[in-house]
Order: sequence, then structure tokens, then C-alpha cells
Amino acid sequence: MAITPSIAGGFRDYLPADMIPRQQMLDIIRATFERFGFVPLDTPGIEREEILTGGDENFRMQIFRTSTRLAFEQMALRFDLTVPLARVVAMYPEEIKKPFKRYQVGKVWRAEKPQAGRFREFIQFDADIVGSSSMMADAEIVALMYETMSALGFTRFMIRVNNRKVLNGLAEYANFPVEKTPAVLRVIDKLAKQGWDSVRQELLASTFDDLRSDSAEDDASKVERATGVGLSEDSVEAIKQFIDLRAGTQDETIASVAQLMAKSSVAQDGIQELRLLIGNTRSLGVPDNAWAIDLSVARGLGYYTGIVFETTLLDLPSIGSVFSGGRYDDLVSRFGSASVPATGASIGVDRLFAAMEELKIIARRRTLAQVFILNFDPESASYIQGIATQLRRGGISTELYLGSEVTLKAQLAFAVRQEYPVVIIAGSTEREKRVVQVKDMRERKQEEVSLNAVLDNIRAIL
Amino acid sequence: MAITPSIAGGFRDYLPADMIPRQQMLDIIRATFERFGFVPLDTPGIEREEILTGGDENFRMQIFRTSTRLAFEQMALRFDLTVPLARVVAMYPEEIKKPFKRYQVGKVWRAEKPQAGRFREFIQFDADIVGSSSMMADAEIVALMYETMSALGFTRFMIRVNNRKVLNGLAEYANFPVEKTPAVLRVIDKLAKQGWDSVRQELLASTFDDLRSDSAEDDASKVERATGVGLSEDSVEAIKQFIDLRAGTQDETIASVAQLMAKSSVAQDGIQELRLLIGNTRSLGVPDNAWAIDLSVARGLGYYTGIVFETTLLDLPSIGSVFSGGRYDDLVSRFGSASVPATGASIGVDRLFAAMEELKIIARRRTLAQVFILNFDPESASYIQGIATQLRRGGISTELYLGSEVTLKAQLAFAVRQEYPVVIIAGSTEREKRVVQVKDMRERKQEEVSLNAVLDNIRAIL
Repeated sequence: MAITPSIAGGFRDYLPADMIPRQQMLDIIRATFERFGFVPLDTPGIEREEILTGGDENFRMQIFRTSTRLAFEQMALRFDLTVPLARVVAMYPEEIKKPFKRYQVGKVWRAEKPQAGRFREFIQFDADIVGSSSMMADAEIVALMYETMSALGFTRFMIRVNNRKVLNGLAEYANFPVEKTPAVLRVIDKLAKQGWDSVRQELLASTFDDLRSDSAEDDASKVERATGVGLSEDSVEAIKQFIDLRAGTQDETIASVAQLMAKSSVAQDGIQELRLLIGNTRSLGVPDNAWAIDLSVARGLGYYTGIVFETTLLDLPSIGSVFSGGRYDDLVSRFGSASVPATGASIGVDRLFAAMEELKIIARRRTLAQVFILNFDPESASYIQGIATQLRRGGISTELYLGSEVTLKAQLAFAVRQEYPVVIIAGSTEREKRVVQVKDMRERKQEEVSLNAVLDNIRAIL
Repeated sequence: MAITPSIAGGFRDYLPADMIPRQQMLDIIRATFERFGFVPLDTPGIEREEILTGGDENFRMQIFRTSTRLAFEQMALRFDLTVPLARVVAMYPEEIKKPFKRYQVGKVWRAEKPQAGRFREFIQFDADIVGSSSMMADAEIVALMYETMSALGFTRFMIRVNNRKVLNGLAEYANFPVEKTPAVLRVIDKLAKQGWDSVRQELLASTFDDLRSDSAEDDASKVERATGVGLSEDSVEAIKQFIDLRAGTQDETIASVAQLMAKSSVAQDGIQELRLLIGNTRSLGVPDNAWAIDLSVARGLGYYTGIVFETTLLDLPSIGSVFSGGRYDDLVSRFGSASVPATGASIGVDRLFAAMEELKIIARRRTLAQVFILNFDPESASYIQGIATQLRRGGISTELYLGSEVTLKAQLAFAVRQEYPVVIIAGSTEREKRVVQVKDMRERKQEEVSLNAVLDNIRAIL
């Protein structure tokens, strides 16, 4: 019985027309990360479940577990590349000398409910610096984000930077119980995507019923909302005032927040770090207009302890952040080591690629081959195979027609559809004369070229 | 409570010293595949279980199933990249025009029993041609294997080629029941690894007890052995005679096998395909001494229908095949489409990499950065950050020291250990003079260079 060829819900394929530009994008990211001295790491897709969750039941809800007929240990698919990095740093203290600048690209999986535009598998491209508590390290991450976005061809983007330590002063400053801080930050984090009115409503609400249903939210957030944040009008007003400080230049924002939170000792440390970050980021050549201190940036993940980063596209604000991260000085100590300072950021490759397609920074492309050789005369098969080999060994990507169409016309139609830049035609006449017809498909001209001049001729066309 | 930082059994990490050369290897493979006109495809790590197993219980034993708290469908991790390719071809008949030459690189998972040297996750790098029944396509795969192995730096390897159609004539020729063919092929397939004596023993054995225990074999093979192949001495002798034909040149082998199997009509079709393959492979410039017709090559997987390929390393025969594949004309029809001819091959990346390390074709390397900038004078931080940016924007991979060592001596020791080719030193003296000290670590010389000449100076050194 035939099996229906279908893909599991929440997953997708990348066919070549998308994969070709996507791989160009990945190449650019990798080259930029390597220019900053980051080195590659690879870890398995599957980890012991305990490593991933750290014992947190909330995470357990969001992971894909794996099982085999012989179950020796509880295993699951990684949901990010940061936790595996922390495991690696704790596990190989001898091999990995700090500071350790590593990049990693790979698939991660999350057990989201499958629905339009939400996927359960995606690629992340991360860069992290482990073993440096210096703000120079955080500034390197900002510079990396700037150089990467620029190298990819983006001009209108904004890197938004904040410090968790400043946000931790929020309870003291806005007068709400400190244990509500995680819930408050999770709500504030939605500002860029949902706007102030929605955020305000969520901060005030004390039961789930106060709120409209929003199916796009994640489960952790649903739990928060079911129990309610329930701040007072005064606290919410103070938070609004705090968030609005982001309007000015980096220095103005810092001066204002220092004044506004003067009474919060917790925040002062974070403000000083931000001051240092401003100087270091400038020294690394990041222009002031490419980034901002934005006090509304909190980042959902619990492990951040200091500076946090986000990157939004000015022409596509609704898609959210495409390149995010922060400092997480306590994550490695989950594995019993001493606390190890670490900072980094991650590109959501699929989201960024979708944005590049939408903004037409990158174009779909059906083929990588530069030369397509027609194959219509069985007697000339050996002749054209020799030409294919000559071109390939000369570094020219060359495809030889291998399909079932036998006419020159049908094969040429295939070549036009696939948009090969150069087509080579050689039948018995050409073979006997030891020449080929070289068709420049872009300039729409054709030339007879002798066999030993083909490579140079095609190099000149390309 | 701290969690022990450990990796799940049967999995491994690639730390940077291994990942750097491994990525060089992957880059070479990709460049070679692209020169042949193959285009990239990406499919999810997770598929519907039915897609993967085709309903075959044997496969179900070897896969990793996945589960989430909300289970909508039975899903599992892919065990190869060929079955997902067949699904894609059946699923997108409009988007994918045939012949379709695609490559794919990615992780696959198998639920092997974890033990030394056996892993449960590995990377495959595949190239396939879908929609061509021509022997020119199979010859392209042989040429691709030859060019890829050569590009990777291998000189002593052997591509071994056979045809399943010839093997299907074996029952008729060697006088054993045709239904024993799969079991016989599975045993013959071990010849290169285990030698004739072991193979002979297995072919003769009729119960499991006849054989020594071998814990490295897979489960399917165990089942076969438990029930026994149980051939007669005469049949085994005939098989030996058949296998030994591989001793000669391609043409000699074909002439001999045609004679030997003259009475097997089943084999004649396969012999004719091999004749065509020889001519096409030569036309594509593959030297005769790089490949052979080897009648013992069967390939374990059930889906092969014609030509099969293997590549063994002459200096490391025991590791088995590093680049294998074959023609599988019926796989796509599993998904209800008409039969679609297809042929291709797959590199076992981890095994090939291990071989390259062992043969010293590739070397471990701790860093990609070409320049390392010491960072010992806080007053000069901004100055050296500017230099880092200048070099990075000039395309030089540059690392700035961000660790906790404060002395020039300790930082220099770090640089020596990591083997950076160039080290830059700049303290207050250099900053005031707008110069830097450039240390060529390989030539062991140091030079004072003015700020605006640094980039050119370093380019000249590298």
C-alpha cells in the first residue's frame, strides 16, 4: 500500500531555490563570525534530558523527548545551542582554554503546537564568549551583530541593548513585590511586538479572564497570565515612564535612567556596565545610529544575568528580533563548576532568511551550475563528458543533461527554465571539428569555440 | 543540586580543534559537489515514522522515536537522507523538475547499542541524481566520488562497483533457493571487512550456534544468522569462484562474469549496464586504477536495484567504506508515484574524517584567527579595539584578548599555546606614537609598524 508523501506537522523542507540563497546567507554569517576569531563547535542534537531542563518542569513541557527500543537514559532534542555550550565548557576544562570564543550552527527543536508560521524545528547560528566578564566582550557581541547584519546587506536595522541588572531594580523603583519581576519582564518583552496598550493590560490584569485570548503566546506565558501579574496603576505608570527613557541617544538614556532609578541600588551596577558598553561599542566602530539602549528589552529566557541584546528590522518590526542574546554568568554553574562569565547572541536563521526574502535582499535561484551541456547525440556522449570534466576541473560548475528528453529544443527549454548562464551545444558536426557552440544566455549570443579554448572562453563570459 | 555535565551514551562532541579541519573537509566536499551541478536541499530531522520505515518493522527497531506532551502523530528521527529525498521528490512534482541533482548534508540517527567506536548520531553528505535511468548518471556518481576523494587529498583509495542485477543472478548460477539471496548478499557484503573464511563460515552455517559470537554485528544480521543461511558446499564454492573474478581489469572482469553466468538470464541485463558504465566512467576522466568492478560488493540496504558503489581506503581497509551508494529505482514509488529512477552516493563524514586524521591528511588546529591582539593596558583598550576593527573589516580574522590575565607575559603564553600566526602588541608607548608592534610568530621576528600600514603589513606576513 502506498504511503502518502507528507511532512510532519510544524516542519518544513527547503527546496533548492530557497536553499541556495539560504546557504549564501549562512556562508556570510560564518565568514563574519570567523573574522571576529570565533571557532566552530559541534554538539549532538540529542542530550540527556536533565542537561537540557536543569530539572525545570517548564522546559520539560517544551522539548521533544526521544526513545529507542533499548532505553538506557532519558534523552531529548536540544532546544537551543547555549545549554549544550555550558555543558561543554563544564565538561572539558582542560581542552577548552578560556576565554573561549565559539560559534555553532545547527538545528534545534521545540514542542510548539503546530500552527501557521510556527515551526518546531529551526536553525540557530550562535556566537558566544565564555570566560570574560569584561564589557569589552559584550561590546564585541554588539559589533559582531552590527558587522553581520551589514555583511548580509541590511541597512535599516536597530540593535537594542539593555541590562537585566537595571531591570532587576524595577521592583524597588516602581514599588511592586520583587518576586513579580520575572512575570513583569516577560510581559515587557512583548512591547516591540504588541505595543504598550497590550502590555499595560497584561501588567494590570490579575486573572486570566481579564484578558482576550491570544493563541500565539507560549505556555509559560499562559501560566503567568492565568495567575495574573496584577500590578497597581501607579506601578504600571512608573514602568511606562522608565520604558519611555529609550527615546534619546545612548548617553542621554543612561543619564536619565541613572537619575530616575537613583534610589534603586540594585540598578546602579547595571547602569555602570551600560556606560562601559557605550564606550567599547564606539571604539569597535559601531555607529551610534545602528544601536540604542532600550530599557524595554528583557529577553524571555531565565538564564540572562546582565547585558541583553536584540535586533529588529525597521521595515519589518512585526517579525520581532532576528539576532538576540545576552550575558548569562550563572549557566555553567548548573553543572557544578564555579560560576563562569559568558555572553553571546544567536541568529534565528529561518526568521532572518524569511525577512531577507521579503525585503528582496536575497533572491531565489534554481541552480548553482554556471554551464549546462546539452546531450542529444548518443555518438557525442563521450565528447561532451570530456568537456564537462575539463570545465569542472577548471573550477566551473557544470551540469550535463541526463534526462529523458532527446530533442535539442526540449533540452534548451529546460536550460532556459533553470536559468543557466551558459549553454554548450555539441553534436556530431562539432565533435568532428573539435569545437563546441557556446551560448551566452544573458547576452543572447552564440559562438563557435575550439575545444582547448572552451575553459578560457567561459571564464571570460562569467 | 548540580547536574553532572555528561553526554548521552553513543554521542560525541566535536571541539574546535577537530571542528576546524572537519569544516575544511565539508567545504571541499561541498565545492566538489557543486562543481558537478548538484544543488542543496534541506529536510527536517524529524519525519512521520511511516515515511521512514515504509511499514517495515526491522527499520522500526533502529530508529529514534520522538514524543511531545501533545502527540498528534507518530514521529521519528531520520536514519538517512535518501528516504527523505524520495519523499520530497514524490511530494513536490511541480517544483522539482527532473533530472534533479541534489546534495544534502545533515545529521542522521540510528538506535544502535552504544559501544566503543559506534555512534548513534552521525553526519552524512549525499549526492543523488533523480529522474535519469542512463548509465551516464551512474558514471557521474563514480566521477564525483573520484574527484571528491582526490580533492580531499586521498591518493590511495579504491572505488568498488557492482550491480545488484548481477547478484540477483547468483541463485540461478550457484544453485541455491532465490529467496536466500538477501541473506547471502548481506553476508557477502562483509567480505572486505571480515575476509573470506568468516564469510564462508556464515554462508554454510544453518543455526546460530555454528558461529562465534560477534557483538559488533547489527540486529538484522543477527536474525539472519539465528535462522542460518545454510548453503551447500558446492554453492559456496561457486560463490567463491564468482567473487574471485574481481581480480582483473574492468573489461576482463566483465568478460569473465559474462562467461561464468552465461546460463543466468537475470544477470545479463546487469552485465550490459556495467559495460556501459565502464565507457562512461572513462569518458569522465576517471583513471582505471582508481576503481574496479568488484563482484563482492552488495551494500546492505534493501532499496538498491542496480549499480552499487563503495569506496575503501587502501591504507585503512578495516574501517570499511567511506563513500557508498547505488541505484534505487523503486524507492520513490513507496509514496504512490510512478517508479522514478535514481542513483547516488553518501559520505559517512565522521568515519571519513577519522580516516583523514589517522592518515594525517588533515591536522587539528586550535584557532582560525590569524591575528591576536594583546590587551594589557586599560588606557589603550580603545586604541586596540580600533585596530581589531580595521583588520576585521580588511578581511583578517582577528581576536582581541578578553580574559582575566593582565600581564603581557601570560597573554603571550596563551597566544603561543593557541598558535596564532601573528601577535600585535600595543601599550601606551605605541598608542602615543600611533604605531603597533607586529610579531610574526612563525618567523620569530618583531617589527614596529605605523597604524595605517598595519593591514598591509599583516597581509604580507600571511
